[in-house]
Amino acid sequence: MEASWIVYPGDYELWLHREVSLRRDERLSIVPPFWRLDTHYGNVKFYRWIDLEQEEQVNLYVEGRYNIAINDRYVYGNPSKFTVPAGKSLLAVSVVAEVVCPAIFLQGQSFVSDSEWKVTANNHRIVTAASLNFQDPMRPPSSHKLAVEPIVPTAATLLDKSSTLIDFGKETFGYVRLHGIRGQGQIGLFYGESREEALSVEACETYDLIQLDETSLGDDPKLMTYTHPSSRAFRYVQVVCEEGIQVEDVSALYEYLPVEYKGKFRCSDDRINEIWNISLYTLHLTTREFFLDGIKRDRWVWSGDACQSFLMNYYSFFDNAVCRRTLIALRGKDPVETHINHILDYSFYWILSLQDYYDYSGDTEFVRDHYPKALSLLEFCAGRENDSGFFEGQPDDWVFVDWAEMNNRGEVCFEQVLYCRSLEIVAGFAERFDDAKKASALLVKSRELREKIIQAFWDPDAGGLVHGRREGVLDEKVTKYANMFALSYGYLNETQTESVIRNVMLNDEVQRIVTPYMRFYELAALCGIGETSRVVEEIKSYWGGMLDLGATSFWETFDPSQSGSEHYAMYGRPFGKSLCHSWGASPLYLLGKYVLGVRPTEPGYAAYILEPSLGGLDWIEGSVPTPSGEIAVYADANVIKLTVPEGKGLLRFRSSIDPRSSDVAISCVGEDVYEAELVPHSNVLVHYRSF
Amino acid sequence: MEASWIVYPGDYELWLHREVSLRRDERLSIVPPFWRLDTHYGNVKFYRWIDLEQEEQVNLYVEGRYNIAINDRYVYGNPSKFTVPAGKSLLAVSVVAEVVCPAIFLQGQSFVSDSEWKVTANNHRIVTAASLNFQDPMRPPSSHKLAVEPIVPTAATLLDKSSTLIDFGKETFGYVRLHGIRGQGQIGLFYGESREEALSVEACETYDLIQLDETSLGDDPKLMTYTHPSSRAFRYVQVVCEEGIQVEDVSALYEYLPVEYKGKFRCSDDRINEIWNISLYTLHLTTREFFLDGIKRDRWVWSGDACQSFLMNYYSFFDNAVCRRTLIALRGKDPVETHINHILDYSFYWILSLQDYYDYSGDTEFVRDHYPKALSLLEFCAGRENDSGFFEGQPDDWVFVDWAEMNNRGEVCFEQVLYCRSLEIVAGFAERFDDAKKASALLVKSRELREKIIQAFWDPDAGGLVHGRREGVLDEKVTKYANMFALSYGYLNETQTESVIRNVMLNDEVQRIVTPYMRFYELAALCGIGETSRVVEEIKSYWGGMLDLGATSFWETFDPSQSGSEHYAMYGRPFGKSLCHSWGASPLYLLGKYVLGVRPTEPGYAAYILEPSLGGLDWIEGSVPTPSGEIAVYADANVIKLTVPEGKGLLRFRSSIDPRSSDVAISCVGEDVYEAELVPHSNVLVHYRSF
Repeated sequence: MEASWIVYPGDYELWLHREVSLRRDERLSIVPPFWRLDTHYGNVKFYRWIDLEQEEQVNLYVEGRYNIAINDRYVYGNPSKFTVPAGKSLLAVSVVAEVVCPAIFLQGQSFVSDSEWKVTANNHRIVTAASLNFQDPMRPPSSHKLAVEPIVPTAATLLDKSSTLIDFGKETFGYVRLHGIRGQGQIGLFYGESREEALSVEACETYDLIQLDETSLGDDPKLMTYTHPSSRAFRYVQVVCEEGIQVEDVSALYEYLPVEYKGKFRCSDDRINEIWNISLYTLHLTTREFFLDGIKRDRWVWSGDACQSFLMNYYSFFDNAVCRRTLIALRGKDPVETHINHILDYSFYWILSLQDYYDYSGDTEFVRDHYPKALSLLEFCAGRENDSGFFEGQPDDWVFVDWAEMNNRGEVCFEQVLYCRSLEIVAGFAERFDDAKKASALLVKSRELREKIIQAFWDPDAGGLVHGRREGVLDEKVTKYANMFALSYGYLNETQTESVIRNVMLNDEVQRIVTPYMRFYELAALCGIGETSRVVEEIKSYWGGMLDLGATSFWETFDPSQSGSEHYAMYGRPFGKSLCHSWGASPLYLLGKYVLGVRPTEPGYAAYILEPSLGGLDWIEGSVPTPSGEIAVYADANVIKLTVPEGKGLLRFRSSIDPRSSDVAISCVGEDVYEAELVPHSNVLVHYRSF
Repeated sequence: MEASWIVYPGDYELWLHREVSLRRDERLSIVPPFWRLDTHYGNVKFYRWIDLEQEEQVNLYVEGRYNIAINDRYVYGNPSKFTVPAGKSLLAVSVVAEVVCPAIFLQGQSFVSDSEWKVTANNHRIVTAASLNFQDPMRPPSSHKLAVEPIVPTAATLLDKSSTLIDFGKETFGYVRLHGIRGQGQIGLFYGESREEALSVEACETYDLIQLDETSLGDDPKLMTYTHPSSRAFRYVQVVCEEGIQVEDVSALYEYLPVEYKGKFRCSDDRINEIWNISLYTLHLTTREFFLDGIKRDRWVWSGDACQSFLMNYYSFFDNAVCRRTLIALRGKDPVETHINHILDYSFYWILSLQDYYDYSGDTEFVRDHYPKALSLLEFCAGRENDSGFFEGQPDDWVFVDWAEMNNRGEVCFEQVLYCRSLEIVAGFAERFDDAKKASALLVKSRELREKIIQAFWDPDAGGLVHGRREGVLDEKVTKYANMFALSYGYLNETQTESVIRNVMLNDEVQRIVTPYMRFYELAALCGIGETSRVVEEIKSYWGGMLDLGATSFWETFDPSQSGSEHYAMYGRPFGKSLCHSWGASPLYLLGKYVLGVRPTEPGYAAYILEPSLGGLDWIEGSVPTPSGEIAVYADANVIKLTVPEGKGLLRFRSSIDPRSSDVAISCVGEDVYEAELVPHSNVLVHYRSF
């Protein structure tokens, strides 16, 4: 029986989200998000019934101001130690707090603070208290910090008498430290994700000015170290010392979320291996208290961005906790007054993310708890349909889709497809959580919408879905967005599917996608139609293109047609672009899901498919984490080797010869297509011949 | 053009309500309210378009962390002085704050922070910023304090070597000050609304323990004064000095809301005059940042309690600001998850209070702004009707009605009457604010409910409405509550009205009401049926009964059958009862509305009735505030003298002779009943003969 700090469920995550969201600054100006920032309830009451054989001394630690009541009588003076009498008692601790999230840690002999406790925000609902992963009474939830470890630069270049350019060798994140400070005066730290940015005192996105005096740092020169209190994203730091102050050395504390590197990937192509490694590093840098979009900018939690981080995470860290924190933070509290992040698409991505989380983690409890929140979000959306039952951006909505040039006024087909999928998903939750009437209503609605989408947006001449419709007039432009999602969701019939593949997906005339963000879905859709080799080539050229430019993490946007420091500009600012953006890391997902070929077919890998595809590589090797352990895969042109954990696995592969295995029974299920059911906890060797 | 601190509308009030609500403590244990405590939005953006002929320097003061943007470009470094360029610009200040309410004060040459600004909580809604009554940039809204003035005790009694009992002569509120402190050690302040309470170190409801050291108070013995930082309610303070520390003298800073004493009342009976004065003082003590219930306990804002304070206020201070603050604080933010204060009746009282505020103040803007909040509150209520369309207390609802003994499970008739009235009121708002469809739906519903109430609860044998119905079985008990409200609202036909008067209101067999709280409505109902003389007698005996016991402010409950310190006990605690409770001050309302006889008949006294009634007194004299000035009334058996301000006034009176006046035209409108239309801004003398 271990005591934990307990809180109102979800409130710690919302509190932490507020804290993290307010850490963004730009040239010393705080940049708060432009959405409502929900936080914890400020007045909550924890309680439980206890029945003691004999009286007990308990120790209580609280975040916030509080009182204690035993059977509705206050224990006056709020002692940190008090006695609970023998017999049956109702023990209650009321806590109020604004700056921190109300939390208690209680240690008795026969009972402790844990999920046996109830909590209410005095708002009618009584819920089970959330037991946080904080077991030390002296380290309350508000003291939470990510892990740090010291790192040293790879190079330091004296620029002039007062300025030095420090290079940490790769993109990183953390607290800059100055060592061997002598004298007193101001030191400027000018951060750069690129060398150019750090050198630009006038235009770098982040900098700090520090006033230092060696005498305030103690007597021992070796200990004259200053650690800056704000963590920053950088590869380069230009350190500028005012006359009168000097710094001997610079290092940093790298700050990170401790995660396990569970997913693995290696193959015969070193370029792909490097891309996979840098993707993993990019994802790790952006996987923190929450899935952030980028570490320099925005340092915020965006639903569409996170949706991809979730999926990459399932093929790398498989860290469910950061998924849950992110889902809670994005959804916030009721009432829903705007789309998530004010972006129409981003409400839908939240629902998609919840489904993905369910599929991969099998965390029924969390999804059941959040089903009502999916429902009320969808109700908010339903209230914004236009007369045709479609979505249009309303004033103060942002219809994002992607950074490419496009006209997103009016009815954008892409949004209708996401809405349709969201309806299907929530219908599925409704069915699973015994809400049959709701399930059926949502399903009917989604089917009707699906038909309406094809009726309204399908252009037989272009052979695909057009981008949108404004005041009844269809766009002439076909873009990939709606088409690739409709394709992935199986919303097209056979003829339409073939047409979209030929006329849209594989058609170079159609506007190119220039963000890794939408390339994610584009490449996933191409994999889905068997174009894995093409995708592997695309990964090599697109992500490889960033490597050629010296990228040590992947970028927010990459347009190969740009050159030089054009690559760093965005939003009209020379260094506005994020050079470490989570959505840049999608090869993790693509290689895990479509090359290693592993994906769950029942929540939490209760069942899964394993469909390795060499994609033009000589051999591939790796492992994919599941709740019950890792699925290890090796494949080359002649053998497939697997080690599988718990779960009903199905191997599917193509072979130009009759495959054979002494480990599994293989059956032919189509032309050159074979399947084998996998025995849990087994090793499997299959001999075959790839095409 | 004067700059004010501006905020998101309502947020300052909610913030202040949180602060005030958390000031209650009981023997050093904080006692937070048991309802959800809403507060300000933590992330807001103030903005306005400006068009300047030439660039302007502006000074900015902010509560919270902030950034400035001109045309979506940050003014880096958050300077407190910056320049806005000539031409058209969008100026925006984003503010985040948790502990204080985000607020800005901006001073340019041609523009300032005022209600020309818009503000959003980044939640889709864009509203006009609320301009607070804070015009000093150095005194931001969070620094708000009520006024104080020094008061001295009327007596000090040495109890023993270390203890002194200080008597301030009457109930008061403020900060105790200790003068001429010598030595060091602990001083205990034990507060008492009664002498007994202050003497009871073990059981007094509030006390403070202070650790003092004369050396920390400066060198000059005269200046060795310590002012306790928490304000308290008391008449008596027992000061207990530990060995080693001494106090020469004790005083206090009386803390109060500066209000104007606009309403006046005097009559031929000094006992009534004293009751009126003590009522006024009681109301003033409880009229603070908000209308509080009591100053020792609960120091909270309760809707049912406040409903009466509102009405008393209209006959005394006519302070609209405290009304608005209280209405905002009570209603909180959406979503509505519980009844206001968790009490079924208290949701309805909020709607009643809003109507009263409208009637007396004529503040259409405020009421229009809050009409949607009345609507959503009523929608919450509608969602809780049972199958019969009636209300029953649900788990976690408190069905209060009154402190007397009664069974409030099941369908309590009183609650249905209040619900019916609430429907009528909101129907009226709907009509006034151009929501005709809603108005008609609510009106139909209220009429149906009214019929159902009579059908369900009218007991022909008892000749009144029974208290309630449980599982289809009617109460045998008739109580006054539902009957007196139904009577006041005109829900009874003539026969029923007569029966209720005879069998319920004037029937001593029916359970007596023992709180000033419900006596308020009882006596108002009696006045409404012409029983003013009886009411004046009741006031003399009931409130006079408290005076006989030494009351210097009126109490939460008063049962004349109790004796000695029984009067001080409540909630099983010897001094649990509040001896200064706003609902004790109802004579202010009764004497103003029914004896002076003044009440508005159109919002804001656009029209009003003046119906003086001597109620057995030889003469009465006083004035009632209205938005356009005071209505002064004098009446004795032979003359009525009036001075009236703006508004369509109607004088109505009974006379046993033909009345005459050279100031107004008098017409006879019934047997011995006369009316005269009053000319605005006139003096009127009428000769008549009272009955």
